[in-house]
Amino acid sequence: MNSLGQLFRIHIFGESHGESAGIVIDGCPAGLPLSAADFTEDIERRKGGVQKGTTPRKEDDLPIFKSGLFNGKTTGAPITILFENNNTRSGDYEKQRAVPRPGHADFTAHVKYGGHEDFRGGGHFSGRLTVCLVAAGVIAKKLLATTGITTVAKITEIGGEADPEKGLDKAIEAKDSVGGIVECTATGLPVGLGEHFFDSVESLISHAAFAIPAVRGIEFGTGFAAARMFGVEHNDPIADASGKTTTNHAGGVVGGITNGNDLVYRVAIKPTSSTPKEQLSWNRETNQVEPFSVKGRHDLCIALRVPVILEAVTAIILTDLMLLEQRIKRII
Amino acid sequence: MNSLGQLFRIHIFGESHGESAGIVIDGCPAGLPLSAADFTEDIERRKGGVQKGTTPRKEDDLPIFKSGLFNGKTTGAPITILFENNNTRSGDYEKQRAVPRPGHADFTAHVKYGGHEDFRGGGHFSGRLTVCLVAAGVIAKKLLATTGITTVAKITEIGGEADPEKGLDKAIEAKDSVGGIVECTATGLPVGLGEHFFDSVESLISHAAFAIPAVRGIEFGTGFAAARMFGVEHNDPIADASGKTTTNHAGGVVGGITNGNDLVYRVAIKPTSSTPKEQLSWNRETNQVEPFSVKGRHDLCIALRVPVILEAVTAIILTDLMLLEQRIKRII
Amino acid sequence: MNSLGQLFRIHIFGESHGESAGIVIDGCPAGLPLSAADFTEDIERRKGGVQKGTTPRKEDDLPIFKSGLFNGKTTGAPITILFENNNTRSGDYEKQRAVPRPGHADFTAHVKYGGHEDFRGGGHFSGRLTVCLVAAGVIAKKLLATTGITTVAKITEIGGEADPEKGLDKAIEAKDSVGGIVECTATGLPVGLGEHFFDSVESLISHAAFAIPAVRGIEFGTGFAAARMFGVEHNDPIADASGKTTTNHAGGVVGGITNGNDLVYRVAIKPTSSTPKEQLSWNRETNQVEPFSVKGRHDLCIALRVPVILEAVTAIILTDLMLLEQRIKRII
Amino acid sequence: MNSLGQLFRIHIFGESHGESAGIVIDGCPAGLPLSAADFTEDIERRKGGVQKGTTPRKEDDLPIFKSGLFNGKTTGAPITILFENNNTRSGDYEKQRAVPRPGHADFTAHVKYGGHEDFRGGGHFSGRLTVCLVAAGVIAKKLLATTGITTVAKITEIGGEADPEKGLDKAIEAKDSVGGIVECTATGLPVGLGEHFFDSVESLISHAAFAIPAVRGIEFGTGFAAARMFGVEHNDPIADASGKTTTNHAGGVVGGITNGNDLVYRVAIKPTSSTPKEQLSWNRETNQVEPFSVKGRHDLCIALRVPVILEAVTAIILTDLMLLEQRIKRII
Repeated sequence: MNSLGQLFRIHIFGESHGESAGIVIDGCPAGLPLSAADFTEDIERRKGGVQKGTTPRKEDDLPIFKSGLFNGKTTGAPITILFENNNTRSGDYEKQRAVPRPGHADFTAHVKYGGHEDFRGGGHFSGRLTVCLVAAGVIAKKLLATTGITTVAKITEIGGEADPEKGLDKAIEAKDSVGGIVECTATGLPVGLGEHFFDSVESLISHAAFAIPAVRGIEFGTGFAAARMFGVEHNDPIADASGKTTTNHAGGVVGGITNGNDLVYRVAIKPTSSTPKEQLSWNRETNQVEPFSVKGRHDLCIALRVPVILEAVTAIILTDLMLLEQRIKRII
Repeated sequence: MNSLGQLFRIHIFGESHGESAGIVIDGCPAGLPLSAADFTEDIERRKGGVQKGTTPRKEDDLPIFKSGLFNGKTTGAPITILFENNNTRSGDYEKQRAVPRPGHADFTAHVKYGGHEDFRGGGHFSGRLTVCLVAAGVIAKKLLATTGITTVAKITEIGGEADPEKGLDKAIEAKDSVGGIVECTATGLPVGLGEHFFDSVESLISHAAFAIPAVRGIEFGTGFAAARMFGVEHNDPIADASGKTTTNHAGGVVGGITNGNDLVYRVAIKPTSSTPKEQLSWNRETNQVEPFSVKGRHDLCIALRVPVILEAVTAIILTDLMLLEQRIKRII
Repeated sequence: MNSLGQLFRIHIFGESHGESAGIVIDGCPAGLPLSAADFTEDIERRKGGVQKGTTPRKEDDLPIFKSGLFNGKTTGAPITILFENNNTRSGDYEKQRAVPRPGHADFTAHVKYGGHEDFRGGGHFSGRLTVCLVAAGVIAKKLLATTGITTVAKITEIGGEADPEKGLDKAIEAKDSVGGIVECTATGLPVGLGEHFFDSVESLISHAAFAIPAVRGIEFGTGFAAARMFGVEHNDPIADASGKTTTNHAGGVVGGITNGNDLVYRVAIKPTSSTPKEQLSWNRETNQVEPFSVKGRHDLCIALRVPVILEAVTAIILTDLMLLEQRIKRII
Repeated sequence: MNSLGQLFRIHIFGESHGESAGIVIDGCPAGLPLSAADFTEDIERRKGGVQKGTTPRKEDDLPIFKSGLFNGKTTGAPITILFENNNTRSGDYEKQRAVPRPGHADFTAHVKYGGHEDFRGGGHFSGRLTVCLVAAGVIAKKLLATTGITTVAKITEIGGEADPEKGLDKAIEAKDSVGGIVECTATGLPVGLGEHFFDSVESLISHAAFAIPAVRGIEFGTGFAAARMFGVEHNDPIADASGKTTTNHAGGVVGGITNGNDLVYRVAIKPTSSTPKEQLSWNRETNQVEPFSVKGRHDLCIALRVPVILEAVTAIILTDLMLLEQRIKRII
């Protein structure tokens, strides 16, 4: 349900306009130093209001530690972090409830939960909750750092343009939202993480990546381009005993298992569903299709926020795999 | 590990050249009629030796039921199905063990399992085990059929060509292997399957799809193309109270939850790693990079076998979700 | 780890003297009315300070809802409930840290977590966290009530006496703590909850019951006495098509599955480890065994608090089983 | 469902009179030498026909390895072991199907699975499947042996008599079946296995122990007697830095975590439900309660078979915990 992981296990909860969004992180080794300052950079990277194209909604987004820390270190017990919601204007949403917004979970959540869902700002379905993923990612990154592993994600394309500025300008000009591509790379990985079949690295990473709202596709290494290559082109010749390969079309995973090269994958992010443009949707009250415009504050390009979230889920999965392979100790 | 699912739960085991490949299916409702004949069509579709481009290795692939059936129906207890390995030529593999084959799990498995892995024909890492997925898929499809859901996958591209024949001819001419694209569509789905975040339909489907060897990417609906669309282009207007949309760029999933439209997704299949062409790899014994050729029987284009396997994993996931939503009963 | 359940799933966190104790309840059906008032009675029953023999520490123990509620009903999203710790005197514990208290987790937690554990008042290992189980139990009981199932636990023995007053008086006279026996009965159960083997009702109930600190044994139906009976004495003759039996030595479970009779089981509660009496323990600093007395506020008989907690874990398990059997709907 | 464990994970399947009983063991480290001879002793200990009071049904019970072994060692892939059913007389059971046998799962399974269950000899609910637990236990014991841990179970009481012979003679004289008590001790355990709350050692062990048919109660250390002790009597004084205590009333577990002393617990086994005596039960066909006698071959005292099974489940749980604590390596 709202849980992910085997040994490093996270449980997410909260709503966009409810009391709070939060996360429980279970299985974090004891003895890891942790303070609010550790979270600042990644939370800032995710925040709206900074870059052209991101929403003007601003939250302080201070992590509030409710359990699992003592004397500035993790204790081995579950770590609970809350983010309070202070900056909400729920009235925006109540007005438009009769019209499920295309691209949002309004319609699907309404049917699934019989109308009991908290619909304000997407409720539990809001991108707001990704701040919790970022927080868990901060802890995961600190654990990975003790082993020399890093995760770095960057935007490679916005609105079809390699130059993000150009892509955003297209959106601004069109008075519409745009999508983008984000690439994540993990370095310093040992050979042997992941399992064949159901717990393949690709299975676990894609499972986590698709938990990020707006992700529509994922590809590892050469990905979809591999479908158009010959075998001898695609295969990565092994160059030495460490497993290093002369090319990295596999994106660092062979047979579901890391091969000692960089893990590389990309995700496709759809354009923000809340476009400023007028759209059509069915009105529950009138039972008619009618034009409407989305109210509320929204990002022109949600992809801009994704890199730090993608790093986070990657770090969370890799931490779990490193614990499973006994390469991160239970006490740091 | 080698398990997938929550209520409809499968456990895979076996090796390519060991005693057998097999699967335990736990959580199947009681009372479903089941016989060996139910498996014939899908197992034949997966088999090598039929189409141009698939391997000449032929297995009878008769499902051997070891538990969970009584008087021709499922009992509610775990169903175990074995496939015996009769048609193996392991000697092929012993000779080349010193040279880990690029693209195969030879190197990663060797490091991960300290040299104890069964290396013959890929061992536990072999595509051979996908016959077990197909078998579980047959059962899942029968369960889904009781609710009107179907899953159909087809090849949309081989070697970059929309016409598979043309793509295979390119491979034959190049004396190399090629990849392809496979698209899967599920129809008849209710609104409300899946959860937001970690158990989104995309998370669960991609998790299962990447368990299929050679899958390198997955995209839902318009997928990667969505990253190049404007919001108003991509959003699917809701047309009526059933949730039907006038377009289906979302591929049938919004907010991680099915929206009552067809579930549509595509996977990219890399070219078969065992190309007939000469390749380079590192030799464990000589500690040198040297040219070698893969021995054994192999497919020119593994993508040809994938459709029925993709249908199977899709059906397995959908069956689990239908049980979770209480839309398939515990007794059929 | 700190999670329990399959479909009705709880995650516990917090410490005795930290910020808070709390619980996330995932999988609760949508549409259940819920307010703070629903929790008052059970939380009061668990509280210290009321009965002779329970600790004078008093917490307000008001449930603080952080997620999952909207307009007074559950939404289907995870419900998070916090209990703040206001009434702590941690200094009591810092002084005695060098001497691990016999019967407490001081020593085991210290070794397991390398000294990073929050040792104040037992930290994460404190009985304090059982208030969270009680809170989840309140929700589970409300769900079960919609189906006619009730869970009732009562003390059957304190300090070896059937009359609890007499047992407590023995303890007060001896200036020592005492244990007791608590019996739990669930009525209104259908036939068919639970599975044979690993998910037997006894397996699941005992798993949950031993999560309550101080439980040392559990027995179903006639329990240990069954080991001294003949078969014909112990077997419960089935009396009619509903499965009702003329006796209930089985305690309502046969073959791991409920048989339509009352579920009846008992747990043994050890005497409170924090006895007022002087004890011996090893001192980490001096590396010597020396006499010491436990400081802090403690119960003479922890068993007095157990009934409502036992009801809670029973209700939690039964709710999960009712969901698994599709006898509680996803939308209430 | 039919699975147990987190890292050392078993999946049980099969029926008493079906094709086979079997088990998949996933997560076993690679490189453990394993042969059929390793299983002989424990399988013999479990077998009927040897001791006074056990059933004359004899199975060869040769373990048939279907996966996970290569060159006499475990590979790290799932190990599948089958036991074929050769010695069945199912006709015995078909005749009496209308009358659900008291104490057996006949009635509960029939309702739960809508009459589709394999009723022959208890089907999936048969004690026959415990041979699979014994087989997994053999592997677990071998893994534990590499760390110096042993598990030993013995009968401490039959039919209320400390001398098992006397208890059996009582049963023979009464022409009835009897129960007994079995005690299990694990030695060589480190401090720190298990978690507080839901994954306490007691929670995990009891979960597994109640999977053994006929277990009606479990107690750790002094168990139910603890409920009648004073705190100062029950507490085990810690004697030195290793955690050794001068008494072991706790049975080796404090706060849910092993404390470095012997793990000691006892289970109560009910008398064999299939007593030779005439009993009453409801007849599904006549809808009347009528006298009947159980046909088929059965044990006078099932407790006699339990020690080796109890050792097995204990070893399985401890192996899992040792892997979780990274005290057994992924490659032996």
